This record gives sequence, structure tokens and C-alpha cells, in this order.
Amino acid sequence: VSELVPVRWLGDSVEYLDQRALPGDVVYRQARTVDDIVEAIATLSVRGAPCIGVFAAYGIAVLKASLPPERFVEAAARVRAARPTAVNLAWAVDRVMASPDALAAAVAIAEEQMRTDERIGQSGLSLVPNGAGIITHCNTGALATGGRGTALEVILAAHRAGKRPRVYVDETRPLLQGARLNYLELDRAGVDVRVIVDGAAAFVMQREQIDLAIVGADRIAANGDTANKIGTYGLAVAASYHHVPFYVAAPLSTFDRSLATGSEIPIELRSEEEVTSFRGTPVAPGACAYNPAFDVTPGTLIAGIVTECGVLRAPFEPAIAEVFAAPRTSTA
Amino acid sequence: VSELVPVRWLGDSVEYLDQRALPGDVVYRQARTVDDIVEAIATLSVRGAPCIGVFAAYGIAVLKASLPPERFVEAAARVRAARPTAVNLAWAVDRVMASPDALAAAVAIAEEQMRTDERIGQSGLSLVPNGAGIITHCNTGALATGGRGTALEVILAAHRAGKRPRVYVDETRPLLQGARLNYLELDRAGVDVRVIVDGAAAFVMQREQIDLAIVGADRIAANGDTANKIGTYGLAVAASYHHVPFYVAAPLSTFDRSLATGSEIPIELRSEEEVTSFRGTPVAPGACAYNPAFDVTPGTLIAGIVTECGVLRAPFEPAIAEVFAAPRTSTA
Repeated sequence: VSELVPVRWLGDSVEYLDQRALPGDVVYRQARTVDDIVEAIATLSVRGAPCIGVFAAYGIAVLKASLPPERFVEAAARVRAARPTAVNLAWAVDRVMASPDALAAAVAIAEEQMRTDERIGQSGLSLVPNGAGIITHCNTGALATGGRGTALEVILAAHRAGKRPRVYVDETRPLLQGARLNYLELDRAGVDVRVIVDGAAAFVMQREQIDLAIVGADRIAANGDTANKIGTYGLAVAASYHHVPFYVAAPLSTFDRSLATGSEIPIELRSEEEVTSFRGTPVAPGACAYNPAFDVTPGTLIAGIVTECGVLRAPFEPAIAEVFAAPRTSTA
Repeated sequence: VSELVPVRWLGDSVEYLDQRALPGDVVYRQARTVDDIVEAIATLSVRGAPCIGVFAAYGIAVLKASLPPERFVEAAARVRAARPTAVNLAWAVDRVMASPDALAAAVAIAEEQMRTDERIGQSGLSLVPNGAGIITHCNTGALATGGRGTALEVILAAHRAGKRPRVYVDETRPLLQGARLNYLELDRAGVDVRVIVDGAAAFVMQREQIDLAIVGADRIAANGDTANKIGTYGLAVAASYHHVPFYVAAPLSTFDRSLATGSEIPIELRSEEEVTSFRGTPVAPGACAYNPAFDVTPGTLIAGIVTECGVLRAPFEPAIAEVFAAPRTSTA
């Protein structure tokens, strides 16, 4: 089984795995122009908030080397706006733009992601009991971060530690990142995993022994409110009803302390066709659909936020302020 | 726009609309043998608890006219067991078997369903405010009952009364009865309707003005616990969290007072392929899936059960006992 590498630097371009084709086809593409880069992000060929950050960082390095300064600034702004909800995209673009050596900054972001994800896995390990029943949503593995994963890395760390987790993966409509990608990554690692439709999660919590739910994040406000893939909020509500602790796993680069609460996080609305068709098969041709790509889970429903600097606990506002104020060993 | 008729008596066979092919294709088939009848039910060509009852009733009439007595009894038992969760199937088979004139009993069941559904619509009308935002799950229209519908007939009655409901239809994975069938029926009637993925329901309740949720039922226990399409329970939990009243609409034939609580209702597990592929398009080929077709919503989450004899309110056990004890004008 070959490794699936979501983003790779090729010297004068950035290569990416077209995640839309998985798990059926493994297709790598090269991005050289701003159009290539924006399209890869907007079509979700590259997806997962931290992975978008890594890809955009390399993309900015490509553009800086190939464009005259004025066109470069304009192109970078287009990349930065390719998707509105994940904050890692803007964070990575701004960091590379501010660096005198764009490529070195991009490489640093990619390498830090790997170490950050390892630390997230270690931070979350103690939250997973032996033989834990776990529900997760969307994809949060290496494919989603370009490193080792966030929520999925917590599960994999528990698996490597011999805890034998039993995992239920929400399929995650409309784009099925759970059924297509999270299942693939967990199954390849040898984890006991099965796919459920999103609507079955509450039933599974009611009837099976479920010890925790854990998901990733696209943006976390200063009070812990968390934007993540549509369906996350309903899962958090169901977890609360069943007294199942609900965790978010995310690097500090996912926090946006400029937003006081989640109500300020912009929610991307995507095309109706994502709902009215199913991988190219029409379901309800011509039907009207409402397709928010993300939702916001209030911090009050979250038992803990697993970061590279440990597990943050409620009340989140002071906990988040504290972790950002603390002197940190550089992760670079 | 021609009427879609889910079940029709042809004199020596029973015709049914193959609902698997909707909304793309309108295909009618004839059932003459026990294999035809069982297959139509087991494959969900005929679906919706009351509609299965009507179809099975005509099916028993076909079999009674065409089989010798011993083979008839065996065949009827197979029809009765074609699906385990909906109680209307067993109810209809038993009623036709107990009647000296099988066909007359089947016709009576079909005609009663029409009148019962009309009364359900009238019973539920006062629950729907003007301009109500409504969420519903799965399909509960004429296609699901062979009459006028249950939960959907409440919405249609409100629409006809000029209340201008705004309806969000859960797509209802895995078989997408919401996106394919409920959308179709509401749109044809001119109702303001849009499809959402099941995971978006909680977000819609959080951000939009939603006044009620209303669903159908496959079996209701003596205490009001209600089995319905997978995803119903999660919707009820989300409704409870958002203080949105959650209603069930069902005829009295859906009640199974022999079961004290919902924990006794058998839950049909269906094939993993329903989750891992869609209409022949593979999503996660070879993946393990867990595919319960129904879940059970505790009566404690239900604001009212809309029947042809009015809206039952908690505590449901005495309310249900009372409606069954009351002298009723025959609906025949």
C-alpha cells in the first residue's frame, strides 16, 4: 500500500493529490499558475483546513518566483480568498507573504504541520479509553492536514498504543469525505472502522457503547465556538444529549482570536448540485437545495480542544488566551 | 403533470410504481406471485409503512385467488415477514386474512387510507402557523401511504389553507427518499421547498426560523416511542435542543400496543452496499458499513402524535389507550 501524499513541492510547482477521485482513483496534478492553485482549493481537490494552508503556502512560493511584484500581490489575494471559512488558508498566505524567503516559509509550515499533528495525537491520547467506541465526522487524517492528521491522528495514536478503538465514521454528505477518505485512512492503518450515514450517529450513540466523539475544525473563535464541516453541530448536539464527550482536535493555526464568537465566522455556501446529485449521479435533478458547507458548534457543547499545546478545557476564552500568551518553544 | 399512483388494483394482479427509479423514471410493474410481492416490498420499490400495508392487502387478495389453501397460508406468512419494522404490513395482512372476502377487505383498507390521511391533515392543520418554517425527514406523501400522505399531508393541508409553509426536506440517506420523493411531491404541489443534507438540519434550526419538525412513523409503541427512518431520532434530539416542537403523523394502524416501549421494536439492518454505493456509483467500494434502516425516537421527545382521531399529547400511554378505547365511527 503506497503512501497517499496530499501535497508535494516539485521545485518549480506544487503537486497535489486530487482528493475528489479517491478512493477509486489516485490522481496527482501539478499547480503552476494562480488559476491552478485557486481551482485546486475551490473544487476541494485539496481540502482539509491545515492541508489547504500547506498547499497555499507552496502555491504562494510558486507565484512569488514566477510573477512580477504587482501581479504577485493580486494573485496572492485571490489564493487567500479561494475559500472563506478555514482560517488556515489566510494564516498561511499571510505568513509566507511576510517572509523574505517564501519557499523557506512554506517548507517551515509543512514541516511544522507534521510535528504539530504528532503533538496533537499525543495530547489527545489520554482522552481515549481502552476499547473506546468513537464517532468522527468528515476527514481529519494526513489527507486533511498534509501532516499526520488531527482528530484522526488522536485515533491513530490510540490504535498504535494498543487501545483497539472501534470507530464509526459519518459518511459526511454531500461530498462524502468520511466514507471516501477517513474510512480509507483508518482502514489502511488497521483500525476497526465502519461507515454510517450521518443520520445514524444519534442511533449509534443510543444503542452502542460510545465513549467519545472527536472532529477537526476549520476555524475556532476566541470563545471556543468551532466552525467545521456541515453535520458537526448536529453530532455535537446528539453527543450532549447522550452525555458523550465531544472533542475538537486542531492546531493553534486554526484559531482566529480576532473573532469573539462563532457567529462572526463566514459560512461558505456551495453549489446546489453537490446535494442534488451524488458523485455525478443525479438524485433530484433541478431541485432547489440549500448547501452550507460548514456549521458552528458552540464552545458550550465542546468537552475539550486538543491542540499541540495540550487539551484546552472550558471556559475556553481564558484557556485560549492563556495558550496564546504562554512562551512556547518554537515548533519550527 | 400526471398523478403518481403508488398502488393500483388491476383485477387479477396489483400494479405498483417502482419508487426506486423516481424521480428520473416513472416505471409501473405488476405483481402476480408471492415472489413478486415480497420482492417489491423488500427492495423498497413499494415503501412507506401505510403504502406497504395497502400493497400487501391487495397482494394477499391476489394470492388467495390464485393459490391452493396450504400454499396460500405459507405465501401470506412470507408477505407478512417481508420487512420487520413497519407494523402496518402485519396489520394489513392479518386483517385481509381474517376477512371472508379478501378483495373487499383490501379495497376497504385502501379507501380507508385515503380518508384517514385527509383526517390526519385536518388534525395537524392547527399545529402549523402562517409562514411556518418546517423540517421533515424521509417521504410521507401519497407515495408513502397510497392515500394522501401523513406528515406531508399536514404540510399540504397548511399549503392549501394559504399558510405558505417554507419546507426543508432532509435528503434522507442512504436511499434519499427525501430528496427524490418528498421534494417531488411538495414541489408538484407548489410548496416552497428545498433539500438539505441530513447533517444540515441542526444548523438550519440554529440559523433559520423553524417552527416545527414533522415526520411519519413505521411503528409506535404503547408509550409513544416511535420507529421511523434512520435519522429521525437525531432530528428529534436537535429539535429538542432548539425548542422546536417535534411531531409524528401516523394513522392508528401504525400503533403496536403489544409493545410497551420502543426498545422492543425490531430494527431492520439493510445491506452495507446501500451506504457504500449509490445507484450503482461506488463511494467506498468494499468498505464495512453499519446500516440500520430505522431508529426509535422516545416519546419524551415528541410534542404530539397527529392521527385521524386528533393530536395525541403526552403522557402518551394514557392518551393512546384512550383513543383505542373510545367508540369510533367506522372509517370504512
